[in-house]
Amino acid sequence: MINLVYFDNAATTVVDDAVLEVIKQGFVQSYANPSALYREGQKARKAIEQARKITAGALGCVPDEVYFTATGTEANNLAVFGAARARANFGNELVITGYEHPSLAATAMSLKDEGFIVHVVDPGTNGKINPEEILLKVNRKTALVAVMQVNNETGAVINVCELSEEVKKINHRTAFHCDMVQGFMKYPIDVKSTGIDTAAISAHKIHGPKGIGAMYVRKEFNIKPVIFGGGQERGLRSGTENVVFAMAFAKAIEVFDTKRSSFSHVASLNAYAREKLLSIKDVIINSPADASVFILNFSLPGFQSETLMRYLDAEGVMVSSGSTCSKGASSHTLVSMGLDRDRVDSAIRISFSKNNSKEDIDVLTGLLEKAKEKIIRKAYKKQAV
Amino acid sequence: MINLVYFDNAATTVVDDAVLEVIKQGFVQSYANPSALYREGQKARKAIEQARKITAGALGCVPDEVYFTATGTEANNLAVFGAARARANFGNELVITGYEHPSLAATAMSLKDEGFIVHVVDPGTNGKINPEEILLKVNRKTALVAVMQVNNETGAVINVCELSEEVKKINHRTAFHCDMVQGFMKYPIDVKSTGIDTAAISAHKIHGPKGIGAMYVRKEFNIKPVIFGGGQERGLRSGTENVVFAMAFAKAIEVFDTKRSSFSHVASLNAYAREKLLSIKDVIINSPADASVFILNFSLPGFQSETLMRYLDAEGVMVSSGSTCSKGASSHTLVSMGLDRDRVDSAIRISFSKNNSKEDIDVLTGLLEKAKEKIIRKAYKKQAV
Repeated sequence: MINLVYFDNAATTVVDDAVLEVIKQGFVQSYANPSALYREGQKARKAIEQARKITAGALGCVPDEVYFTATGTEANNLAVFGAARARANFGNELVITGYEHPSLAATAMSLKDEGFIVHVVDPGTNGKINPEEILLKVNRKTALVAVMQVNNETGAVINVCELSEEVKKINHRTAFHCDMVQGFMKYPIDVKSTGIDTAAISAHKIHGPKGIGAMYVRKEFNIKPVIFGGGQERGLRSGTENVVFAMAFAKAIEVFDTKRSSFSHVASLNAYAREKLLSIKDVIINSPADASVFILNFSLPGFQSETLMRYLDAEGVMVSSGSTCSKGASSHTLVSMGLDRDRVDSAIRISFSKNNSKEDIDVLTGLLEKAKEKIIRKAYKKQAV
Repeated sequence: MINLVYFDNAATTVVDDAVLEVIKQGFVQSYANPSALYREGQKARKAIEQARKITAGALGCVPDEVYFTATGTEANNLAVFGAARARANFGNELVITGYEHPSLAATAMSLKDEGFIVHVVDPGTNGKINPEEILLKVNRKTALVAVMQVNNETGAVINVCELSEEVKKINHRTAFHCDMVQGFMKYPIDVKSTGIDTAAISAHKIHGPKGIGAMYVRKEFNIKPVIFGGGQERGLRSGTENVVFAMAFAKAIEVFDTKRSSFSHVASLNAYAREKLLSIKDVIINSPADASVFILNFSLPGFQSETLMRYLDAEGVMVSSGSTCSKGASSHTLVSMGLDRDRVDSAIRISFSKNNSKEDIDVLTGLLEKAKEKIIRKAYKKQAV
């Protein structure tokens, strides 16, 4: 039996035992519909409101500013559609970066059908967005600026606290949305002390279950719903609430919070991995030096990402080739950075959690060295035939 | 300790033990992101595709025609928005009934902002929709007819198989959507042999968890997505898949199916409840005689629904006053039937599952008799002061 090494925590994480326990209990204790007025219904209502309170605590806002959704994707959709459409009366321009997650980029692009103009600011070859370039695109017709805090492929970080305030200085009516899916709990933001109006987060990136996300919406912020119905989540997101997963999300936050030491653990893993990877001939690190310590992207030019990924998988090591969401297609982040085809096609993303160890990294780098030999030899044989 | 009696199964159901078992296992065995290409990812992919196959089996369609969503509400939104917008080129008219669930009605109404005209066909005082009235509204500009199979408040049933075919005879380009949330597994439809193009279902009405729904979309049916992003669910519903709850939904279907005997159990409970309720002076049954056996709506004129509901709750019996989704507001279904205010304001909905017994009904009717005495006496005292 192979001991599995999981290096794909930016795609999804393993659910914590404490979270699993809350889920098991939740189905028994909070089974009723939280909209029901009898006591068992109100018990479920209390459970979800308690989860909201914990989530708000982690975001630095009040519970009334937190709305549960099914996914981070849904939260990004709601923010982009909801904020842009509510501002169509004065502005039809949006500003995003070239390395946004598809749940933000595709949503923004689909607004072109409604008459919006989308300005896209690409990162440099160093992987970083220059905030000045974003600010240059903001004018009196800018309805929305939407950017991700931590890029999901390279870990590149934008100082969204500063950027959001600068945007507001240029146009105070411009909405500022932040995709915080990869940064939440890892690079905490006190949203109330920033110019951020809306933010998207997701439980399954922090050892909670897939199927629950949430959204911060600043009080009195003007936003239109995307899903209509019974008026749950104060009218912004209709549908019977996923009570148990909201409770699970809150538990994941609590567990993550108490283990703030996991940050320094992951930071030292990242430093160790960079060092070990760079000791392999030809390896190039694609992540910026000051990227999120949870994500590390590198290339091994001459070797197809997918071939490497499958080789590692056969040995029990899980990494991502390209972005998981794009099912192995070329990384649009690396393309937006303007990197060479060879470097894009050979890119591998590893992403850490508290569950990883230095030994995991040794296994990975050892296998990469072997892979280099094995895969080259195969190619050579092919040519010889 | 009170033995709780749960008569609100149309609002939500208690999760089955077998389903809970699948959930527990799912978090361990299918933890990976199903879009990941390594073997653990493909294991999660297989799990969700197996769930899709089982769901398709229950709907009478092929797996490729099933799309998982977070809720029945989301499925109704996707169907109404998606089908109407995709047909805006030839038609801007919609036909719905006056007793649709808000997730369908509010969605249709919101399309007025996009230039759509919504025709609403109300039920008669008998609670039933006359299909002929719907057909009279269908013309060459009808983009969509959307109706619920089983009404969530009275259990009134529309023969959607027949109706959908009649609609297609008038205009074959008109889309036909069916909200099957209350009818799924209880009043099975073989969708492929009907004129139904799309249908919405939800797990938590059949002892699955809250937080997972699904949608049937006929192959080659033209529909636009509502949520954009990574292109999951074949581009129709982006966002990381809730793998574990999809597995749970499938298990709920399997369990429900093997207990098809539950239908006759519930049918006999319904008949018994009707008899016992009518033996209480002044009780009026609001559900049609041929309504779904899972739902029974009645009024006790002179007694406020909410007061009755709270009285019963104090004794451990859970019923619904109005529709749960509307948090106790007047039942829009009963209003659309044109019933007297007094009858609307005193309406109670009970809804059954396999877990209910005749003894539960005896407890309920016994308490109603007591409530009549107690609540009247209170009112009398108040007047005397």
